[in-house]
Amino acid sequence: MSKVPKTLETLCINTIRGLSIDGVQAANSGHPGLPLGAAAMAYTIWTKHLKHDPSDPKWFNRDRFILSAGHGSMLLYSLLHLTGYDLTIEDLRNFRQWSSKTPGHPENTITPGVEMATGPLGQGISTAVGIALAERFLAAKYNKKDLSVVDHYTYGICSDGDLMEGVSNEACSLAGHLGLGKLIFLYDDNKITIDGGTDRAFTEDVEARLVAQGWHTQRVDGNDVDAIDAAIEVAKAETAKPSLIFCRTTIGYGSPNKAGTSKVHGAPLGEEELKLTKKNLGLPENESFYVNSEAEKVFRSAVKAGADNNKAWNDLFAEYQKAYPEEAAELTLAISGEMPAGLWSGCPTFPEKIASRSASGKVLNAIAAKLPTLLGGTADLAESNMTDMHGLGLQSKDEPTGRNIAYGIREHAMGAIMNGINIHGGCRSFGGTFMVFSDYCRPAVRLAALMHQPTVFVFTHDSIGLGEDGPTHQPIEHLVSMRAIPNLNVMRPADGNETAACWKIALDSKGTPSVLALSRQALASLTSDDIEKHPAGKGAYILSDADSGAPRLVIIATGSEVEPALVAKKLLEQEGIATRVVNMPSTFLFESQSKGYQSHVLPRNVPTVSVEAGSTLGWAKYAGASVGIDHFGASAPAGTLMKEFGFTAENIAKVARRLFQEHE
Amino acid sequence: MSKVPKTLETLCINTIRGLSIDGVQAANSGHPGLPLGAAAMAYTIWTKHLKHDPSDPKWFNRDRFILSAGHGSMLLYSLLHLTGYDLTIEDLRNFRQWSSKTPGHPENTITPGVEMATGPLGQGISTAVGIALAERFLAAKYNKKDLSVVDHYTYGICSDGDLMEGVSNEACSLAGHLGLGKLIFLYDDNKITIDGGTDRAFTEDVEARLVAQGWHTQRVDGNDVDAIDAAIEVAKAETAKPSLIFCRTTIGYGSPNKAGTSKVHGAPLGEEELKLTKKNLGLPENESFYVNSEAEKVFRSAVKAGADNNKAWNDLFAEYQKAYPEEAAELTLAISGEMPAGLWSGCPTFPEKIASRSASGKVLNAIAAKLPTLLGGTADLAESNMTDMHGLGLQSKDEPTGRNIAYGIREHAMGAIMNGINIHGGCRSFGGTFMVFSDYCRPAVRLAALMHQPTVFVFTHDSIGLGEDGPTHQPIEHLVSMRAIPNLNVMRPADGNETAACWKIALDSKGTPSVLALSRQALASLTSDDIEKHPAGKGAYILSDADSGAPRLVIIATGSEVEPALVAKKLLEQEGIATRVVNMPSTFLFESQSKGYQSHVLPRNVPTVSVEAGSTLGWAKYAGASVGIDHFGASAPAGTLMKEFGFTAENIAKVARRLFQEHE
Repeated sequence: MSKVPKTLETLCINTIRGLSIDGVQAANSGHPGLPLGAAAMAYTIWTKHLKHDPSDPKWFNRDRFILSAGHGSMLLYSLLHLTGYDLTIEDLRNFRQWSSKTPGHPENTITPGVEMATGPLGQGISTAVGIALAERFLAAKYNKKDLSVVDHYTYGICSDGDLMEGVSNEACSLAGHLGLGKLIFLYDDNKITIDGGTDRAFTEDVEARLVAQGWHTQRVDGNDVDAIDAAIEVAKAETAKPSLIFCRTTIGYGSPNKAGTSKVHGAPLGEEELKLTKKNLGLPENESFYVNSEAEKVFRSAVKAGADNNKAWNDLFAEYQKAYPEEAAELTLAISGEMPAGLWSGCPTFPEKIASRSASGKVLNAIAAKLPTLLGGTADLAESNMTDMHGLGLQSKDEPTGRNIAYGIREHAMGAIMNGINIHGGCRSFGGTFMVFSDYCRPAVRLAALMHQPTVFVFTHDSIGLGEDGPTHQPIEHLVSMRAIPNLNVMRPADGNETAACWKIALDSKGTPSVLALSRQALASLTSDDIEKHPAGKGAYILSDADSGAPRLVIIATGSEVEPALVAKKLLEQEGIATRVVNMPSTFLFESQSKGYQSHVLPRNVPTVSVEAGSTLGWAKYAGASVGIDHFGASAPAGTLMKEFGFTAENIAKVARRLFQEHE
Repeated sequence: MSKVPKTLETLCINTIRGLSIDGVQAANSGHPGLPLGAAAMAYTIWTKHLKHDPSDPKWFNRDRFILSAGHGSMLLYSLLHLTGYDLTIEDLRNFRQWSSKTPGHPENTITPGVEMATGPLGQGISTAVGIALAERFLAAKYNKKDLSVVDHYTYGICSDGDLMEGVSNEACSLAGHLGLGKLIFLYDDNKITIDGGTDRAFTEDVEARLVAQGWHTQRVDGNDVDAIDAAIEVAKAETAKPSLIFCRTTIGYGSPNKAGTSKVHGAPLGEEELKLTKKNLGLPENESFYVNSEAEKVFRSAVKAGADNNKAWNDLFAEYQKAYPEEAAELTLAISGEMPAGLWSGCPTFPEKIASRSASGKVLNAIAAKLPTLLGGTADLAESNMTDMHGLGLQSKDEPTGRNIAYGIREHAMGAIMNGINIHGGCRSFGGTFMVFSDYCRPAVRLAALMHQPTVFVFTHDSIGLGEDGPTHQPIEHLVSMRAIPNLNVMRPADGNETAACWKIALDSKGTPSVLALSRQALASLTSDDIEKHPAGKGAYILSDADSGAPRLVIIATGSEVEPALVAKKLLEQEGIATRVVNMPSTFLFESQSKGYQSHVLPRNVPTVSVEAGSTLGWAKYAGASVGIDHFGASAPAGTLMKEFGFTAENIAKVARRLFQEHE
């Protein structure tokens, strides 16, 4: 882009400001403070650095931009409109309205050019770590001399709140450790949060902390485009460390009566102050959503530049395809999100008794070689979660192609980074921890679901069956509380074969994250060894029908409780009670089956008992009685706990018998 | 304590080690590495600094000790046994066994002398911040010249994992900001985690980070008792900053073949290595749970010292009572956990339409003066959560009696610190954030329930009714997922009066934490204005019975959905369908009522519909049909969302009518 005169530059920045505050005012709801304060920062990134193609928002080699401070969404929407994305002034006018393309916080599933959903603070910058990691991995793996087919930056803007949140502390520590040099964030350092000055709660030396965590830092005036521009150049030159540029700004810049105060954080300016602000900024005070045509030209140059860059990259990729057809095909397939043909042909089956976590580890290692961009990891529980992909390296600055990520004891950052790896595209991610610690990363699990990312959460030690570690480590409420998250497929396989089948479902998914709830303890082999056509795909199925074929009682069980349910069935059949056992690895998948299939598996008016070593909450939908555990666990060997808490065939039979008798 | 000769000191430390590894070996499960490595640190704190009374574990002015690295539980159990708590060698032998007093991770509800449940990493040190804060608050508020009735330290031991977790980053940042000078933690800096060396994932400069966060730091050899002792003295002398003492240790110290490796972190040594270790440590290698009588004497001196300290404090308190009878009575009542008489006499009632969050704020401000040790706060949403206690000060170094805590945008630390304030005793705590961000502090909510702490979580903006902020901010699954946590009372009041009643229930609770799920939007006044005998205490009750008195249809509703449910009832009654509306603010309380009451409110065989602007999961227990929302929300004005997603009287009536007709 040719040099833009200073006055025009100012007009450009103020145009962003004007659109943003008009959007908030039209909605009578939203956050004007950040767009006013950070407009110059955003302008500098978007017009001087960001390589993107407004006509092709998903262009693979684009620089990524993450507005971690998602409440400043109008800033992003203004930029998207101005630079030529499919987002009209009318869309801006409909900010925060029903079915608009401009929701209150950015959503990647709604607005072209939005990379991820932000708003829950700390998630943006943490997820960006995953995006930058995926870029480095793919670059290291696929780029060849003179043919850098993956080569982009990950930019972002974050706020005080982002840097206070624990998840970002975790993610920043890991990003520094990993030395992600192409991650460049600008910090909207405005010293103001919703409740007042940051001196009320946040007086740490943020810069010193980031330096301690391995980041490169700089300080600039957040309204000085040249200084910001130069700082970004320096940040780019620092290739061994992620960069945080402290941009000293004024929240609500330009608002004569509200700038620099928390009043301007999260409420519209009001009609009067809006006018005063526009006047102050040299914008026509009586015009709404004003875009000066000269300013527009500056922004719109992104369209041509983007198309050129996109084309140049496509030419480069064509060259690459010619020179490295195998790698090109591999990368192309990975970007598509499709699984390679024959992925499951070599997958082991499990005729033996095996813990589902162990089966999971074997499955992973069987398919890892065929999925060259699958990145795994664990929050420091590799031997417990069985998540290690043997011999595939540990991700680090020195080994950027390493496919195992040591997340450290940082479950929340793990969740966010896993999402980022998927969001980048070209990679798939999974990560493990104990199921009870799913609580630590729950906001990231929710965002995966909201963002339609197929992240795979490997949550092992899925019940009191983990034994001696006791109630702090024993999930009780976790299965139901994760099932309650929309668009999350919680799968609890009953044996090794079903574990493999659930892995297949998880990897075949394109827009739904999966939880694999896996046992610590060994499970008998009970289900089909046809991994590719396994009935687990239906969510629930008849595992063992009544001997007579006409059940008068149904027992639904999941995971480790399927085996005692089968034994209970035998006891009941011996008493002449025709009993069916339904294995239900996934309520999510079962709910998406036809009503016909559902009532075939669970016939109406047949008394039904559920068995799961977790909260009974939620089971009343399917069952008239439940064997479960509605209190915290205890520390003792697993066998003792299962017996004491009623997960024996005898007790299951007893509960089922009682229900059956009540029903007769 | 008189000076202990070095050889005896070493024997004492090795006695801790021996007991700990014997416990793990007997259980064939547990973590020997930390007790072996950190025994000298623990010995130094417990014999040279910790003021405690083994015969009276709840002595109010004791120093608190938190083993944040709860997996090293045998270290703590060994200390408790050796210093004379009611924990026998037999108890140690039963480590991790059914119904023993020595569970896998420490639990305050089971073992005398254990202050809190630890194990989920980061919680201990973060909760300790709350404990230290409560001490400083009470000291500043109640101590008089020469009569320091509250005056103790909060000590702890933390691990790599504790310091990696985001929650501790948040809590440490806040502790530094608040300048909690009597918080002294020893960091078991052993460079090893479960998966290997900390260089795999944790290479930040931890010391520089803590210094940036406002901590005082020192470095010592973790086996050098004199150096540790001196460092603790220095830490005590630093009264304006919390202290972290980096103790360089060797995990599994003394184990000739496993020390310094991750192998010794979380698995028993094995019989052979156990013997070799004992031999190496100068312990009789064939004796289990060996306690040398001279060593025992050293530890047991805590009993006499504790009794003396306890008595001295009681004498001091008697003096205080004489000199300051009002303050003494106030503090005594606060320590008892009882609410003052007449607390609710001046509580406002709400005949007007009001948001439950606003009513909550008014209730709080009406009772705050009568509850002088109630500490509140918010994760930077005071104006949204309405949690500010007006004019009662902002907690800070300069104003240690301030009763409002600005937690910053740190929900997780807020939860842990709130728990710590309660655990300390003498104070009660509440804190607010948006309900959707309950996910951010969920591990602390769970721990409150597990630890039987009556923490009050004020979660406002409790549904899509928050409007424009959109799906990242709209809770869907949160009500059910919190209801699934054992021993957590989730209350969703229908109006202002019921909000006051729920506050009363929350504050009257002694062993159950509460969630107040409060609306952003205004709610009509619908329920009794008798706050003290409000039917909310039953969890659910008939708010409006069928006009005939004989319902043929029941509508259960909660919170903001009670009003449209009442309108739906009118529509149905007009059609001749006798309809009862049940208001169910708390499933938790309802479940504890008699079966008779339950079936009185919800008669069997009468078709029942539930209405709640959240996930329908869980409602099948009470209802044959549910009006709810099983997908993410959207960004639009609240009224639009409520209409689009079916929370109108018309739609409720439609769903109810359909169920009624199916049933006829």
